[in-house]
Amino acid sequence: MKVKFELLHTDARARYGRMILSRGTVETPAFMPLGSRGTVKAVTPEELRVAGCEIILTNAFHMMLRPGIEVIERHGGLHSFMHWNGPILTDSGGYQIWSLATQRTIAEQGATFNSPVDGARLFLGPEESIDAQRRLGADIMTVLDDCTPYPVTEQEARESMERSLRWAARSHRAHGDHPAALFGILQGSVYPSLRDASLAGLLDIGFDGYALGGFSVGEPRSVLWEMLEHIVSKMPGDQPRYLMGVGTPQEMIKAVRLGIDMFDCIFPTRNAKRGHLFTSSGIIRIRDNRYRDDVRALDEACGCYTCRNYTRAYLHHLQRGHEILGARLNVIHNLHYYEWLMRALRAAIEHHDLTGFIHEFFRRPSEANVTPRTKAVEA
Amino acid sequence: MKVKFELLHTDARARYGRMILSRGTVETPAFMPLGSRGTVKAVTPEELRVAGCEIILTNAFHMMLRPGIEVIERHGGLHSFMHWNGPILTDSGGYQIWSLATQRTIAEQGATFNSPVDGARLFLGPEESIDAQRRLGADIMTVLDDCTPYPVTEQEARESMERSLRWAARSHRAHGDHPAALFGILQGSVYPSLRDASLAGLLDIGFDGYALGGFSVGEPRSVLWEMLEHIVSKMPGDQPRYLMGVGTPQEMIKAVRLGIDMFDCIFPTRNAKRGHLFTSSGIIRIRDNRYRDDVRALDEACGCYTCRNYTRAYLHHLQRGHEILGARLNVIHNLHYYEWLMRALRAAIEHHDLTGFIHEFFRRPSEANVTPRTKAVEA
Repeated sequence: MKVKFELLHTDARARYGRMILSRGTVETPAFMPLGSRGTVKAVTPEELRVAGCEIILTNAFHMMLRPGIEVIERHGGLHSFMHWNGPILTDSGGYQIWSLATQRTIAEQGATFNSPVDGARLFLGPEESIDAQRRLGADIMTVLDDCTPYPVTEQEARESMERSLRWAARSHRAHGDHPAALFGILQGSVYPSLRDASLAGLLDIGFDGYALGGFSVGEPRSVLWEMLEHIVSKMPGDQPRYLMGVGTPQEMIKAVRLGIDMFDCIFPTRNAKRGHLFTSSGIIRIRDNRYRDDVRALDEACGCYTCRNYTRAYLHHLQRGHEILGARLNVIHNLHYYEWLMRALRAAIEHHDLTGFIHEFFRRPSEANVTPRTKAVEA
Repeated sequence: MKVKFELLHTDARARYGRMILSRGTVETPAFMPLGSRGTVKAVTPEELRVAGCEIILTNAFHMMLRPGIEVIERHGGLHSFMHWNGPILTDSGGYQIWSLATQRTIAEQGATFNSPVDGARLFLGPEESIDAQRRLGADIMTVLDDCTPYPVTEQEARESMERSLRWAARSHRAHGDHPAALFGILQGSVYPSLRDASLAGLLDIGFDGYALGGFSVGEPRSVLWEMLEHIVSKMPGDQPRYLMGVGTPQEMIKAVRLGIDMFDCIFPTRNAKRGHLFTSSGIIRIRDNRYRDDVRALDEACGCYTCRNYTRAYLHHLQRGHEILGARLNVIHNLHYYEWLMRALRAAIEHHDLTGFIHEFFRRPSEANVTPRTKAVEA
């Protein structure tokens, strides 16, 4: 076991845990900001720390394309390259092959595709992905998976899932006894029996944690909840469970209740750039003219740098002017909100009051809701 | 006198001074970063302080257009709006009427023009500009001037300069006994006798400091040096001298040698966004492929956050990806460089070694030089 995972508290199916990695400890439920391209949009590592972030996510696919793994290797790895000294989980690239690569062909050996950066013909197989993640210096690696499209027949979904399992086994072999942790990724599309088979196959191989993949590929959101209800409680109780690419605050709360421990999502950063800000009274779309002369803090309940020092009117002004400082202040706030939510969920689990927290959370007034979308655009 | 100005040291015509304002002390030669639209591009006030910045510049014209003076007034002024508690000099808008306004007509009463933001028909006269600057809470105001275009006949330049003088007198009356300082602005185009007459007229009115305007309007750069040689030593020795909109490091050094005390310029911020970085070994264009795997600090001689924590390869990567963090790190560095240069010039004057400093500075290898340009695009 490359990652020590302790369960500190539980409340029904929800878990408050702690992952101990050589570069630091991560309390769960944990949110991992996306640093797919070697930067969490607009913010410094110091600002991530202040927000309460303990682990970030980067992406082997993106790093391969630009600047190239060899450039990061010359720095001694991603931590030095990005100036982030905490744990990093690296995405294998399976989802990006599905969402970003053009002219892709998936064969047993791996995926061949055109680089979205410069059109170069590239190959990524399980061994190549693990090799890249090793050279990046990941703390938690993930297996390369064949991300099953939607909609798909059960037969196609089975073939894809079984290929993912064979790739998982090859990833596991390629990883060998490397000190970084390695997570398996469940596939199986919208078919409960295939999700079961995927989990069984991954358990046979044996990983340090298990990620739920193959969502946000165009399926109705209700399928996500059906699948989570079906599979999460069957996943090992003493290992971390990671729901990839989800989601809104509301979705993360629901998933925590079902026993999920880890999240990543583009919403806090991408929505921040668009001026969609998560607050204790719902989403604020700061471009809206109603904020033009609103001298209140963005969120009176928030203690982040943005809320302590600036008004809604100032953020509105920056957003209207497409100012870089606006994007910064917005991202700082949204990441604080996401990290606050994780802390609040952990505290609620510790006090066996998750139901009370959820009741309180969902009865708050909400100016609007975020529409769930796939993370394909930027992830 | 609303600003106390002390000359601490001189070295030939160069001066090391200190302006004492109610919101803080400003050592000169001083560089004022441009916060024309209510934000110094990409950075926070705290980062400006760390860079060594003691005063910033904002702009009455831009604030009038967006968000509107009344919005800033509701915050109790610019300092609260921007979260900057040090001195602020406000540009009157004369230059922006020339550079940005469309369909402008200049009459004796003032300028009428179309807003570049929403096309609204607007009027700005000397009294309106002072009123706006008062409501913004400026520490140093400037008179509204009629920025003389180039090329222009001597007769036209005289008429424009004389209008500027009449506007200066009206600005002075409108300012009255307000506690903020008020600077006059010299015009006179490329005609030494008109520059003399402008200075004499402003001295008759009596201001707290004197700014040199009407440059960067398309004239050859050599004219700037002719005019400075001609006029600077005639300006009051016991009051601050401000050269508006200049310049490159090389230009500021030359101007300091002629007795200039204050500068503003868009170069450190705008060039940063383009990836043009000022270093002790000249300009580095960080997009250049030669930096792709360069693991050295941007400038080994620099102690800024960027140079202490990131490599050229990382900055190159961010620039290629149009990352917001790249713009931030670049601006931080360039502003540090400009503030470092001011400190170095002050130290050289204190030690009566400006000639030695200049000799050393200009013999450094330089990868390229910045082409001087007007600040019309963004100022």
